Amino acid sequence: MAAVQWPENVGILAIEVYFPSTYVCQEKLETFDGVGKGKYTIGLGQKKMAFCDDQEDINSLCLTVVKGLLEKNRIDPKDIGRLEVGTETIIDKSKSIKTVLMQLFEKSGNYSIEGIDTTNACYGGTAALFNAVNWIESRSWDGRYAIVVMGDIAVYAEGNARCTGGAGAIAFLVGKDAPLVIDQGIKGTYMQHCYDFYKPDMASEYPTVDGKLSIKCYFTALDKCYQLYKEKFARQQQTNLQKTTISDFDYMIFHTPFCKIVQKSFGRLMLHDLLDLEDDLDSNMQEKYKELIKYRGIDLESIFDDEKLCKDIERSSVKCSEMMFKEMTKPSLLLAENIGNMYTPSLYGGLVSLLVNVDQDSLLNKRVVLFSYGSGLASSMFSLKICPEEGLQAKFLKLVYQMQSVKTKLSQRIEVEPDEFGRILKRCEETHHLSDYTPMSSLDNLWPGTYYLTNVDKKFRRTYARKPKTSKFVETAETSCGFL
Amino acid sequence: MAAVQWPENVGILAIEVYFPSTYVCQEKLETFDGVGKGKYTIGLGQKKMAFCDDQEDINSLCLTVVKGLLEKNRIDPKDIGRLEVGTETIIDKSKSIKTVLMQLFEKSGNYSIEGIDTTNACYGGTAALFNAVNWIESRSWDGRYAIVVMGDIAVYAEGNARCTGGAGAIAFLVGKDAPLVIDQGIKGTYMQHCYDFYKPDMASEYPTVDGKLSIKCYFTALDKCYQLYKEKFARQQQTNLQKTTISDFDYMIFHTPFCKIVQKSFGRLMLHDLLDLEDDLDSNMQEKYKELIKYRGIDLESIFDDEKLCKDIERSSVKCSEMMFKEMTKPSLLLAENIGNMYTPSLYGGLVSLLVNVDQDSLLNKRVVLFSYGSGLASSMFSLKICPEEGLQAKFLKLVYQMQSVKTKLSQRIEVEPDEFGRILKRCEETHHLSDYTPMSSLDNLWPGTYYLTNVDKKFRRTYARKPKTSKFVETAETSCGFL
Repeated sequence: MAAVQWPENVGILAIEVYFPSTYVCQEKLETFDGVGKGKYTIGLGQKKMAFCDDQEDINSLCLTVVKGLLEKNRIDPKDIGRLEVGTETIIDKSKSIKTVLMQLFEKSGNYSIEGIDTTNACYGGTAALFNAVNWIESRSWDGRYAIVVMGDIAVYAEGNARCTGGAGAIAFLVGKDAPLVIDQGIKGTYMQHCYDFYKPDMASEYPTVDGKLSIKCYFTALDKCYQLYKEKFARQQQTNLQKTTISDFDYMIFHTPFCKIVQKSFGRLMLHDLLDLEDDLDSNMQEKYKELIKYRGIDLESIFDDEKLCKDIERSSVKCSEMMFKEMTKPSLLLAENIGNMYTPSLYGGLVSLLVNVDQDSLLNKRVVLFSYGSGLASSMFSLKICPEEGLQAKFLKLVYQMQSVKTKLSQRIEVEPDEFGRILKRCEETHHLSDYTPMSSLDNLWPGTYYLTNVDKKFRRTYARKPKTSKFVETAETSCGFL
Repeated sequence: MAAVQWPENVGILAIEVYFPSTYVCQEKLETFDGVGKGKYTIGLGQKKMAFCDDQEDINSLCLTVVKGLLEKNRIDPKDIGRLEVGTETIIDKSKSIKTVLMQLFEKSGNYSIEGIDTTNACYGGTAALFNAVNWIESRSWDGRYAIVVMGDIAVYAEGNARCTGGAGAIAFLVGKDAPLVIDQGIKGTYMQHCYDFYKPDMASEYPTVDGKLSIKCYFTALDKCYQLYKEKFARQQQTNLQKTTISDFDYMIFHTPFCKIVQKSFGRLMLHDLLDLEDDLDSNMQEKYKELIKYRGIDLESIFDDEKLCKDIERSSVKCSEMMFKEMTKPSLLLAENIGNMYTPSLYGGLVSLLVNVDQDSLLNKRVVLFSYGSGLASSMFSLKICPEEGLQAKFLKLVYQMQSVKTKLSQRIEVEPDEFGRILKRCEETHHLSDYTPMSSLDNLWPGTYYLTNVDKKFRRTYARKPKTSKFVETAETSCGFL
């Protein structure tokens, strides 16, 4: 065995978030779609949904977010040694988005950047993050930073599911001595073959979805990952598995296809904890689990077949976990509520929301547990520690400071009415796959500094330009957000 | 810094190769296509081309090769902790092939296997291999094996390029104490945005190719990777970069879109070595480089613009390097000549060919340099040592023994005439994307133990079955090949 040393505190050094400047209001969409009032807003827990017009595609989203990360953190492009993209918005079966992003490094002369694209539904970003961390801990590492990029444009055919779309991209700068440190060795992973949500119609942007199966798969994966995560956590902490519960963690965030499923997931984990307990419950425990005690001994896997029982359990577990949910998870839903499902960035939008919504002192030295889910299916539960050492505080404060602009940006977006939103999606549906195409939509709505598609030529080659950062609009929007 | 130890000799423990049982003869294809005699066979250096009918797809290819790897090496499926697929044959934009392969692990109850799919043209397998090695060297590693899978079905529209197709899949078992050890820390990587070969028409199996640009990109990437690889090698060996030449390596293998480009590539590296030399050449050197000396001082990047000069240099460098090419590279072309371009497995088909074609004593403790190229573009040059320690010899002999069946299998294939080959490709073109489809082709030609597509249902869900291994045919074909 060769004696060596792994770098310490490998994790996330900086974060950049991008979402489109246009949204549609979910309440208005309920009226427009003629569904029951509250179906989207209460039933699913959604407020607004972001979307792109035809001048943005997955390449432009990723260009925008990576350029932003480099600029705002004043990173020399030569200092990047790895860049990997996680996405399920595939517009080329062979050429990776990673290679498109290499344009951002040309001027620096840095062509030596490992990593390509990785795909499995909403799980791609998580796989890319794990790969980046492993790279830094391996003998391949050359001392440079990694960038992890995740982005998607989530659109659905007209009908029931359209309200669960969204769009956005997030990029992480990954390295050692980071303020958000990935816990290594305590990861629960669960993968299984299933057709819950997939995109087999290659000519369409829209997925094929088996809604009911999809929910079952999500919860099954959650159960399995949580069990494994708890086992590994208990072993690492040398504590009793039985006594390991969500109370041992500080924050729990989840991949968020829609917000309501997250609250149900949190409740489910509480039930999971109860089912794990073998001992008699003392009075404290009886109080803590009072709404759920009647379900002790139930087989979690079997309840899916009984719709009424399922609903009863959901209701009870949501009620039982309500206070803890408000503390540990609700602050992570800001972006999901206001943007919708960004697919690969969804879980990490939860992390950003947490950093934005919780005061800094309540974050220091805390453990965040993350549940990543991608249909098909691939899932992992893992965790990170926020600023576990004093020496990392300056970096942590900088990271949190940079995130503050997210709230301002959310509030500065432009609302589009449902009928216009429908027309835009129709246009994208008809044109997203065309060659010899010039986008028709106006650039006026784009944030300054946003990359956009200028043309797809006869041979399907795509070219991009960037909206200037130096307009009056930039100065207002970005300076006031405290961006560098 | 935490004190830890990386595992030693991380690399490839076992290899499984799969290629279709049917091929078309390139010489007959020349006649059928009405092109000049020798255009495919001499001009490109190809002999036979493997292809699939409609009962095989990328999922079935990967199922076949992974099942074979597990069975022949008697691996307990529970011992696999990571499985990643590299491919550019995308039949679903969201669901990974990895999740389809999870079916092979269901019976064992092992659902905890990290890794998904990774894509950039022919480079995906290399990225997956790097990720697997990094995982084993990181703190994420749980002590289990990784499997790296690469597979593709390479087909082209009727015309010039159709003869450069191929099909196949390769799987590696990756772990510590391996007989093929990846050299860590001496890797040259080059990535750049370009549209040389890509697949933007999502509804088609066929790529969009700019042939001339593609060749230029391949050679540019080769130059850049070799330069970086040599620098890192010289640093690690504490030798002079100037004096580092291909003679310092034992074998050099290349991604092989067609065989002729490999011979040209080898020659190009020899010219590269000469251009790196700053000193006056002694008589030995003058003899070694005699055909190339007139090009000393030339700028390698500039010659692409001068077609005649380019051809002259190619001819001279091929001549100058002929003897070394025969020793160091030619033995790696067996599969490429007889199967064609398998895309992601192409480079590793070169490794298999080397292991099959060179006697064991000539392989022991030798360094193989590998050049991986994926259009778009992503490329790396790296190396592995064959059995650098005596303790690994038993594993090495087992690995080589298992490879011997490859030659037998190549010779047992079924020849299909060009007109029938054309009809089969037409059928695949018309049906590869359909839902509610049952493959029409016969199973008779499939090797025993091959997975095949039984049906695509109305919701595009694909189901597979396996041709029994216990037929008379199996006993003949496999027992005689020395398979376990």
